[in-house]
Amino acid sequence: MPEEVFRNDLIKDIVSKYRRLWALSHAESVLSWDMEVNMPKEGIEERSTALAELSVLSHELLLKPEFLQLVDKAKGAEGLNDYEAGVLRVLDRSIRIAKAFPPEFVRELSETRSKATAVWTRAREKDDFKMFEPWLQKIIELARKAADYLGYDEYPYDALLDLFEEGLRTRDLDPVFSKLEKELPKVLEEIMSRSWAPKEHPLEKEKYVTEDMKAVNNEVLKLLGFPLGMRSRMDISPHPFTTEFGIKDVRITTRYEGFDFRRSLLAAVHEFGHALYELQQDERLMFTPIAGGVSLGIHESQSRFWENIVGRSKEFSELIYPILKKHLRFVSKYGVTDLHKYFNIVRPDFIRVEADEVTYNFHIYLRFKLEKLMINEGVKASELPELWNDEMERLLGIRPKTYREGVLQDIHWAHGTIGYFPTYTLGTLLAAQIRAHIIKDISNFYGLIKEGKFDPIKSWLREKIHKYGSIYPPKELLMKSLGEGVNPEHFLNYLREKYLS
Amino acid sequence: MPEEVFRNDLIKDIVSKYRRLWALSHAESVLSWDMEVNMPKEGIEERSTALAELSVLSHELLLKPEFLQLVDKAKGAEGLNDYEAGVLRVLDRSIRIAKAFPPEFVRELSETRSKATAVWTRAREKDDFKMFEPWLQKIIELARKAADYLGYDEYPYDALLDLFEEGLRTRDLDPVFSKLEKELPKVLEEIMSRSWAPKEHPLEKEKYVTEDMKAVNNEVLKLLGFPLGMRSRMDISPHPFTTEFGIKDVRITTRYEGFDFRRSLLAAVHEFGHALYELQQDERLMFTPIAGGVSLGIHESQSRFWENIVGRSKEFSELIYPILKKHLRFVSKYGVTDLHKYFNIVRPDFIRVEADEVTYNFHIYLRFKLEKLMINEGVKASELPELWNDEMERLLGIRPKTYREGVLQDIHWAHGTIGYFPTYTLGTLLAAQIRAHIIKDISNFYGLIKEGKFDPIKSWLREKIHKYGSIYPPKELLMKSLGEGVNPEHFLNYLREKYLS
Repeated sequence: MPEEVFRNDLIKDIVSKYRRLWALSHAESVLSWDMEVNMPKEGIEERSTALAELSVLSHELLLKPEFLQLVDKAKGAEGLNDYEAGVLRVLDRSIRIAKAFPPEFVRELSETRSKATAVWTRAREKDDFKMFEPWLQKIIELARKAADYLGYDEYPYDALLDLFEEGLRTRDLDPVFSKLEKELPKVLEEIMSRSWAPKEHPLEKEKYVTEDMKAVNNEVLKLLGFPLGMRSRMDISPHPFTTEFGIKDVRITTRYEGFDFRRSLLAAVHEFGHALYELQQDERLMFTPIAGGVSLGIHESQSRFWENIVGRSKEFSELIYPILKKHLRFVSKYGVTDLHKYFNIVRPDFIRVEADEVTYNFHIYLRFKLEKLMINEGVKASELPELWNDEMERLLGIRPKTYREGVLQDIHWAHGTIGYFPTYTLGTLLAAQIRAHIIKDISNFYGLIKEGKFDPIKSWLREKIHKYGSIYPPKELLMKSLGEGVNPEHFLNYLREKYLS
Repeated sequence: MPEEVFRNDLIKDIVSKYRRLWALSHAESVLSWDMEVNMPKEGIEERSTALAELSVLSHELLLKPEFLQLVDKAKGAEGLNDYEAGVLRVLDRSIRIAKAFPPEFVRELSETRSKATAVWTRAREKDDFKMFEPWLQKIIELARKAADYLGYDEYPYDALLDLFEEGLRTRDLDPVFSKLEKELPKVLEEIMSRSWAPKEHPLEKEKYVTEDMKAVNNEVLKLLGFPLGMRSRMDISPHPFTTEFGIKDVRITTRYEGFDFRRSLLAAVHEFGHALYELQQDERLMFTPIAGGVSLGIHESQSRFWENIVGRSKEFSELIYPILKKHLRFVSKYGVTDLHKYFNIVRPDFIRVEADEVTYNFHIYLRFKLEKLMINEGVKASELPELWNDEMERLLGIRPKTYREGVLQDIHWAHGTIGYFPTYTLGTLLAAQIRAHIIKDISNFYGLIKEGKFDPIKSWLREKIHKYGSIYPPKELLMKSLGEGVNPEHFLNYLREKYLS
């Protein structure tokens, strides 16, 4: 029987009362997952209504006076352990955010998001930015307003960053991106001119049958030790994602496009990384506010670690080559080196989601710059296409010819999420940072990958990061587990070592 | 724009406040469906907790003083239309039931159910009644207690019947079963001695591959006009069932055992009948207390109508024979008459869920008698195996040799549901009763089945039954749609006509 983590009576009471909020969030997750994966088309009306009602209900329960009083009272308690303090920190943050927005604002934001997303879908299809422009302008204005409601010390953008990554501020990101802006172009240039990584590969064009690819993904996930059927599933959705319904039911999806199989495979490996973070938590956090990965950035570090550091390594190609040969006939025409090269194509391109690990951060840097301009500097939606294209040309030397290749490519802004993109770069950088630390502790790291012995790697991640759930805020967790904050040096070293040595 | 059905302001207010209760019930349905169809094994702990919390939350919201006052106030309103009166009737009933049980009792019942079900599973595996006996005794005692809490005029059993079929009493069922007890044995004897229906058929042993049978079920459901992908899905579960998440997302499951394909096919057709009832409701009932089929008996009449009246007809065999031949190679060895006979095997057997339409009601009658004895007469769990076997021998001339074939076969009692079984017979009888009425209105009924033209039949069911949702209580709905209450004569006539003429 594991030791009880909550001893303070007030905290015990809070955690017990929180259980119904947990249940509502569990339900919302299942409903959303089902909506993406299973729901028949016309179910949308009833499902949206149900989700909206549950969200209002959660909001009301969180802000119930008795609950708020209980949390306030507990804040005065002394000698709380880390778990207990974590509960208060997480609830305090949720309550602060829930309280910040007046109901009319929440409704306006929610309606604007739905409409803007619908308009964005059509605008992207028609490559018509003008159609989307007024909606994007509205979204920018609402985001500014949201920042004012939330409050901030330095920049309004900080209030938005914090929504997605607890405690993240512009002043944390500026030096990181400056470093990348200075170093990354040189690294990219060298890779493009003298690395083994190709600019394209015939495997991109090879076609597969979905069932065969499913068999590949299943076998690869089994090798990784993913508990399919016991604590997880893998389903299909056009945009792969991970959902946790708790610690013992964490589901991933991948996509099957019928060609360029690495997209399907690496998406599955990426989502496996997210899922593992949820699955390897301390089970005593179950049902509590401190269950679940602590932030988007830390989460993304886990998915990128498995996708990039493990999945794109030479040793991983060696490991899975037989599986690929078994299920995808065309793979026999290629050697394992081909496979590794195919997984590591490096080429500046317009679309973020298809970017390789070298150019990816340029895409994020571009968005980070534009978001700062919109939110802090009052730049208008109408100015964004030109700014986008100029920045793209400056960073990657290519200039979009369509809006689809430029400012209209991502759903995020249409969906009202400004301040989210930087967490992708945090994840990418932290994945390399974790690698730098793990190879110090596990000298045989790449050897283990080649042998498919992932347990020591998974244990390391569990002990350093996963088991803590949301007990510690992201920055504190990093100091605790890696002894340093986000440091882009590791990422640059990783690229140099991998591509240029 | 359809006419608004709710005009009274109090009712409008009630319906609007009810929406979050609807959302919770939507969520509970999705969570339960997912649990049966998708959930990885170890998800059970978190899922059960979530469902328990949501159920308590629903209970609290329903019994909120402001809501109760509103409902009470509306009861004084004059000139309510049928929809409005329906809303009050349904809510009043839910509130009465929700108020009846003290929280300690609900908890005790819920815990006993879970434990009893677990013990029953093992007891059935081991064919050990003694193991289950104390739990069954506890269930009986709690059911008696529940009846006392609920209140009743004549028999405690009536209070339990009403839980599953609004307004149903022992005095409604006694004459129905007496009639069946008198007539059915003669009909069965005649069928066994001189009907075309066989006692067994080689098609029972033919093996199929799941994917082929899925293709059959999909094509048959398409013929029936089931809106797969638009408003419904068909998934797999060991015990087929239908779930409605609303009017526009109604899902069915079927099972694939690899042999005796009519089980899979007729289960799909049966569940289609349940689903159609939900899908064909007046869409203005969406999100309200009067959405959804009104009772288990009426629901079962719809599933049995499609399974037995349509699905086991000669014309349906003719219609689907080409589909079966296309996907199941072995079917080519048999003619369409074989198919029809195979669907209509009549043979006294021990297991209810495998019973044919002739012997099925004997199984229910047996349970009805035993339930009355337990609840009204104080018969003990220990006496039930012997009573069961004696009654089985008297009714069907066969005596179980194991508990598995007898008193341990159904999950219902273990699950604490006493009073549920009679709704199966109501459904079976009403299906034949509906047939008697529909062939008066649609003289070409069987011709339409043969041609796969189901629209007139579906329209008839929609106009007579489906569109009303729960506006009218079951007995009133029957008077309104068929001009008579449950009348077993139609069922007996149907059997005689089908098997003996």
